[in-house]
Amino acid sequence: MTGRHGDPERGADLELRAVRGIGEIRPGDDLPAIVADAVSELEPRDGDIVVVTSKVVSKAEGRIRPAAEREQAITEESVRLVASRAHPGGITRIVEHRSGLVLAAAGVDASNTDDGTILLLPLDSDASAHAIAERLRSRFGAAIGVIVSDTLGRAWRVGQTDVAIGAAGIRVLEPVSVDANGRPLLVTAPAIADEIAGAAELVAGKADAVPVVLVRGLGRHVAGLDEPGAARLVRASGDDMFRLGSDEAYRAGREAGRIDALAEAGAAHAG
Amino acid sequence: MTGRHGDPERGADLELRAVRGIGEIRPGDDLPAIVADAVSELEPRDGDIVVVTSKVVSKAEGRIRPAAEREQAITEESVRLVASRAHPGGITRIVEHRSGLVLAAAGVDASNTDDGTILLLPLDSDASAHAIAERLRSRFGAAIGVIVSDTLGRAWRVGQTDVAIGAAGIRVLEPVSVDANGRPLLVTAPAIADEIAGAAELVAGKADAVPVVLVRGLGRHVAGLDEPGAARLVRASGDDMFRLGSDEAYRAGREAGRIDALAEAGAAHAG
Repeated sequence: MTGRHGDPERGADLELRAVRGIGEIRPGDDLPAIVADAVSELEPRDGDIVVVTSKVVSKAEGRIRPAAEREQAITEESVRLVASRAHPGGITRIVEHRSGLVLAAAGVDASNTDDGTILLLPLDSDASAHAIAERLRSRFGAAIGVIVSDTLGRAWRVGQTDVAIGAAGIRVLEPVSVDANGRPLLVTAPAIADEIAGAAELVAGKADAVPVVLVRGLGRHVAGLDEPGAARLVRASGDDMFRLGSDEAYRAGREAGRIDALAEAGAAHAG
Repeated sequence: MTGRHGDPERGADLELRAVRGIGEIRPGDDLPAIVADAVSELEPRDGDIVVVTSKVVSKAEGRIRPAAEREQAITEESVRLVASRAHPGGITRIVEHRSGLVLAAAGVDASNTDDGTILLLPLDSDASAHAIAERLRSRFGAAIGVIVSDTLGRAWRVGQTDVAIGAAGIRVLEPVSVDANGRPLLVTAPAIADEIAGAAELVAGKADAVPVVLVRGLGRHVAGLDEPGAARLVRASGDDMFRLGSDEAYRAGREAGRIDALAEAGAAHAG
């Protein structure tokens, strides 16, 4: 970095690099070692963050099932149904995953998998991120953060973005205290880890099979390995104004209203 | 860029730079000219994308109101209430903004504003992005994209991310056709413009008063100025499984169920 002003050659404030050379990942592969080997050419240093797509984590963990078991796998991976909708290709189920994530089809994925197979989300994405971060820190002797990313849909907006479903060694939420005028910003806490995962998706692309991206320039968000993981970014369903789809909530209310009214009418009639 | 492999000095795949030197923006300021002046030190080139926070767009447009009119302003900026929740500081209203965006308090903002004032969202963020993009393209003779960003909360996840509420000269959604195995990816369309806005937030930060960020390395997403804007990323409420808060939908259903049941009971009693 040669200067902060007036110099187009000064270093970027934030840089992302695709990590090349990661081949097809197979069940049982030592993913932390593979990531460390591949990232070494970029000379990882203090403050770097490495984003790994959940897909390769799942493959290394052998989270593979026959495609015919897709509906069963979605059910097994879910703790409750949030919303569902029929469409020409079947029924889309938005569920709460056992991790607390709310997402379509419990994250069960049939893209970029071997034919006839599907891929489930990692068993514990924060633990997977932690294992990779430990390996990178020990191998390179540097404070490196790790994010495990996945592609999620959103309420209210078209298209999907990558977010952090696992994290280690970074502060996933920015602790914001005051605005530029010194007033407290109570409501706004940027979900740093999600924004990093989304930025990495811009580099990884969807069909390029680049599952690892190095992010340089966010050292202020890198912290100890005891930092809470991406589970911190999951809003508890009891605290969520959108914990249930609008149609599902309406139907539940309608049934409750009928039962109450009929009970009242019965009581009035009997009385 | 000196090489794609084995060279830590090769150019980054994606670079972001904070654009310095933009002072306080006042109503009536020529924001496209101010952005063009400030960004010139970075020698904008084909494929660059410039992200501008909505806050400075709103300030230039004079979208300022007395803080005492906050509730009224939220109502005026909204077309319907999506959900609301009481908390110790008052009632949070999640609304559908007249632009179609679903967001808290209709985007009415009291942070980083002059004391005693609030800031409304720009009148038409896509038009504002278009005006800035036109100016940048004419000034630098290069195909440059522009995003107007704002900070939005999400269902199901803690924290907020910056997304694109205005865009010009970029493809806001990536048209994905096949996965790396040649199979169609029907469901997945990355919301590129939202991921870019989130990445820019990582650089702009919250309290640093850096309202403009240059993004370099995404030229494949830069397109003509006739490309649809960020309105393309707003899901129509009729098509949205979460168009109404769970409590609100339940209450509406309960009322409908009561009315139906009482009508039925009345008919049965009369019959």
